[in-house]
Amino acid sequence: MTYCLGILNQAGIVMAADSRTNAGVDYISVYRKLFDFSIPHERILMLCTSGNLAVTQSVITCLQREIENQEPQSLHTAPTMYDVARYVGQTIRNIQDSDRQWLERDQIDFQCSLLVGGQLPGEVPKLFLVYSQGNCIEATPETPFLQIGETKYGKPILDRTLSFDTPLEAAAKCALLSIDSTMKSNLSVGPPINLMMYKKDSLLLRHRLQIRLGSPYLAKMRKLWEEHLRNAFDAMPNLEWELPEEAGDILMD
Amino acid sequence: MTYCLGILNQAGIVMAADSRTNAGVDYISVYRKLFDFSIPHERILMLCTSGNLAVTQSVITCLQREIENQEPQSLHTAPTMYDVARYVGQTIRNIQDSDRQWLERDQIDFQCSLLVGGQLPGEVPKLFLVYSQGNCIEATPETPFLQIGETKYGKPILDRTLSFDTPLEAAAKCALLSIDSTMKSNLSVGPPINLMMYKKDSLLLRHRLQIRLGSPYLAKMRKLWEEHLRNAFDAMPNLEWELPEEAGDILMD
Repeated sequence: MTYCLGILNQAGIVMAADSRTNAGVDYISVYRKLFDFSIPHERILMLCTSGNLAVTQSVITCLQREIENQEPQSLHTAPTMYDVARYVGQTIRNIQDSDRQWLERDQIDFQCSLLVGGQLPGEVPKLFLVYSQGNCIEATPETPFLQIGETKYGKPILDRTLSFDTPLEAAAKCALLSIDSTMKSNLSVGPPINLMMYKKDSLLLRHRLQIRLGSPYLAKMRKLWEEHLRNAFDAMPNLEWELPEEAGDILMD
Repeated sequence: MTYCLGILNQAGIVMAADSRTNAGVDYISVYRKLFDFSIPHERILMLCTSGNLAVTQSVITCLQREIENQEPQSLHTAPTMYDVARYVGQTIRNIQDSDRQWLERDQIDFQCSLLVGGQLPGEVPKLFLVYSQGNCIEATPETPFLQIGETKYGKPILDRTLSFDTPLEAAAKCALLSIDSTMKSNLSVGPPINLMMYKKDSLLLRHRLQIRLGSPYLAKMRKLWEEHLRNAFDAMPNLEWELPEEAGDILMD
């Protein structure tokens, strides 16, 4: 499994991903799922991948090869972020087309989904979720984050704390905690965690981070976070229990 | 959907459930999913239900009818909590046997699962998860909670804060927050929330609580909790970003 998320913010974009890939529970590997296709000072492009690894690796390899070959159409020539997202979608479709019948007949799941975040000159930063079918949705100020993979464990912390106005550094901590919560609750999501933080209009991707297993920062963060949660319980008003009932009625209302 | 959880603790048991049932997104109803089958001073029995409503309602009705008819075998005659759990499992099997072929041929999901918690004289408090197949697992000090239904959203808070030694009242708050997190992130889980808290060896179920939509306590609790989470972000050490790289390398390691 995989967990990746992107946060779109008034101040920029945060993208984060775990690195665990598994085929069943007895074949677990480490693969990077967060990629940087940026050209400094020209265009910021970050991608996260989830789903069938053979499909997503092929997608990334094709996108990279077109750039290296300086082909007329590539992530580096698409004129807007929407075109970038559609171009990623078209690449997924091409790979799916070439492999689908071989996978389908052996009942292998060939689905994938990608996050595409970044900024092109003349545009505000944008964040897209590109589906396995090649279509996409875009993050908005009302829903400033998008997730792919094992999304449920890490969603409450985002729902409770994130808004479009959250400071960018707080959003990055929130992304890290969202992934860490998922790692703690689901073994199929695992370290290292990769993070990128992009400050709006800088056209430079200055903030990257890889947090490995056993990182003192991660241990410290977990400890602090769990202490805060426990303190929050203590600070919460006591539950207002109903008065004891005498009979042990079978409640069936 | 549904979310129910049970917590087994050195000091007792907490059981909690939401009340939303849905068939698709356009048919949403309220049904109680937490039931009390206790006999004061004799036996404490709490049940939570999830899954196909027709199945779980039949299970509860059968269990209740056997008690009312004072049949020789019922939840009130089972000699240990393990027997109670097996008895609930047998009741599930009976209902499944009578309905399964009719549901199966229309591809209707007939699965269900139940939580059974309580205490019988001469035993310590016990908590079981009874599967749709009628078999069961038991909570232990190492894994002091069991969940059924839409379990993922509410699991991180339990994983991070609960242990067998958590004070019972804190465990009850934790259960409430676990359900509230799920409600906030998934519309198919909804109020009212029902809670029961049982203090070990009292053989009396004194603490019950129903929290309705718009409850001032719930609003206050959410506000406090979210404030604490945001404060926790502020208190967390700053991320130790790597030094900026000059080139926008495509990272493929």
